[in-house]
Amino acid sequence: MDELPQHIGIVGLGLMGGSLARDLLRNGVSVTAHDPAAERLASAGDPVLRRIAFAPDVASVAAAPLVVIAVPVAAALHVLACLALHVTPSHVLLDVGSTKCAIVAHARSLGIGNRFVGCHPLVGDHRSGWAASREGMFTSVPVFLCPTDDTDRVALHTTCALWHGLGAHLEVESAEAHDIRMACVSHLPHAVSVALALALRDAAYGRTDLGPGGADMTRLAGGSTEVWRGIFVQNREQLVASLLAFERRLQKLRERIEAGDSLDVGRQLAEARNWFDAL
Amino acid sequence: MDELPQHIGIVGLGLMGGSLARDLLRNGVSVTAHDPAAERLASAGDPVLRRIAFAPDVASVAAAPLVVIAVPVAAALHVLACLALHVTPSHVLLDVGSTKCAIVAHARSLGIGNRFVGCHPLVGDHRSGWAASREGMFTSVPVFLCPTDDTDRVALHTTCALWHGLGAHLEVESAEAHDIRMACVSHLPHAVSVALALALRDAAYGRTDLGPGGADMTRLAGGSTEVWRGIFVQNREQLVASLLAFERRLQKLRERIEAGDSLDVGRQLAEARNWFDAL
Repeated sequence: MDELPQHIGIVGLGLMGGSLARDLLRNGVSVTAHDPAAERLASAGDPVLRRIAFAPDVASVAAAPLVVIAVPVAAALHVLACLALHVTPSHVLLDVGSTKCAIVAHARSLGIGNRFVGCHPLVGDHRSGWAASREGMFTSVPVFLCPTDDTDRVALHTTCALWHGLGAHLEVESAEAHDIRMACVSHLPHAVSVALALALRDAAYGRTDLGPGGADMTRLAGGSTEVWRGIFVQNREQLVASLLAFERRLQKLRERIEAGDSLDVGRQLAEARNWFDAL
Repeated sequence: MDELPQHIGIVGLGLMGGSLARDLLRNGVSVTAHDPAAERLASAGDPVLRRIAFAPDVASVAAAPLVVIAVPVAAALHVLACLALHVTPSHVLLDVGSTKCAIVAHARSLGIGNRFVGCHPLVGDHRSGWAASREGMFTSVPVFLCPTDDTDRVALHTTCALWHGLGAHLEVESAEAHDIRMACVSHLPHAVSVALALALRDAAYGRTDLGPGGADMTRLAGGSTEVWRGIFVQNREQLVASLLAFERRLQKLRERIEAGDSLDVGRQLAEARNWFDAL
């Protein structure tokens, strides 16, 4: 990994931060990390954790010239504010959250908009925490970067080098375009999975009652409560718009089913199938 | 496979009928099958197909003492009516469709309720047709049987022996209870996936725009149009009830997101997660 700082700080050693730490260590980068659950993590005895320098607080992580914020999006705003007090003109800060408008605006309002690059690797798992982290998680994964006009060119260059070094491929778009896109392609499916899980629970069905299709449709409901609460609330305007559009679609299908309109139900199914096959 | 007829007829060589034929042939059972697409299938050159005796019409399949109807549920009613003309007091007829009330009632009205056993293996794939069929598909799969008071005991025994021989495990319930259950655990997730695919299409997103979660959530939309049109319409009363319950759940979540009610959104996410973890 050329052009990368040989020392990277990470705040949060969950699925994202943990996977990042594993890849960086494998590539010979020193990792300093802060995680409130560091003691509990250490007791789990994972040998990888012994190679991480644990920092007692968020501020201490700023000893590294590049810091990755890898905590749920609501907490990320607080972490950013805390780091802002220690940012020098050569620091690079980035995050990995699924919403970008709020944190990009926050960096600007904190006066560190030039040192911050909003990032979002489009990868995940319904499992969360260090235990779910793994080497190579970012290989061939799209990572969205949301720089602004203020973003320092060297900071952006360093950020690109980091993700390229992990095997990701980069896509640049505005924070606004990103959040609109994610409301549809990620946050909407997640909300639908959660509502489906709750509807099945209400009807007293468990996961063992489901076939393979139903199991896939409720997998996301097992995601981190803390991560998704923040995403839903931060991106609520866009998510509500996509939910309403989905509800209208579902209502259209339900009405034709109720009417026993086999022709139109078949047409809707065929349109969905065509979309699926267009890959 | 003891106690099984050594000659079984299959109407329809799609995902279900094709997988059944593969398993039966492997076990030394002779298979006679009818499929309107037989010629096209034969041209595909799959060597397994050369071991099947193709019948020119549905009626000819009744030469076998046990006949499995493996066509979409709407067509299955017609196939059953056609077979009814050739059923002797030693024949056993069964189906594999995802709805049971309609076909069980139809068998009774045709006067062959004693020879017919409604079956439903809870297994599937978004791919369909012979090309998606595979050996061992029924291993460890739950198969629901919906016999009635009229069902002949020997016919039921033969049906159980068939599924046991394929490695499935059996669950007996009434057609009514089955259709209510399936409306929730199978037909509802399928309808939701279809509506989600259509909402994404409306917003001009394709499958390549999705992360792993969104991909899972729209996989069912790739299912067979013909199979699912019939299921949705035949089970419409139960499916509409489960759709309405799901819509209310989704609305409840959407309203709290819109209000920025982080506490309640977190509560709903935690409840879904608890359901998920209760496995």
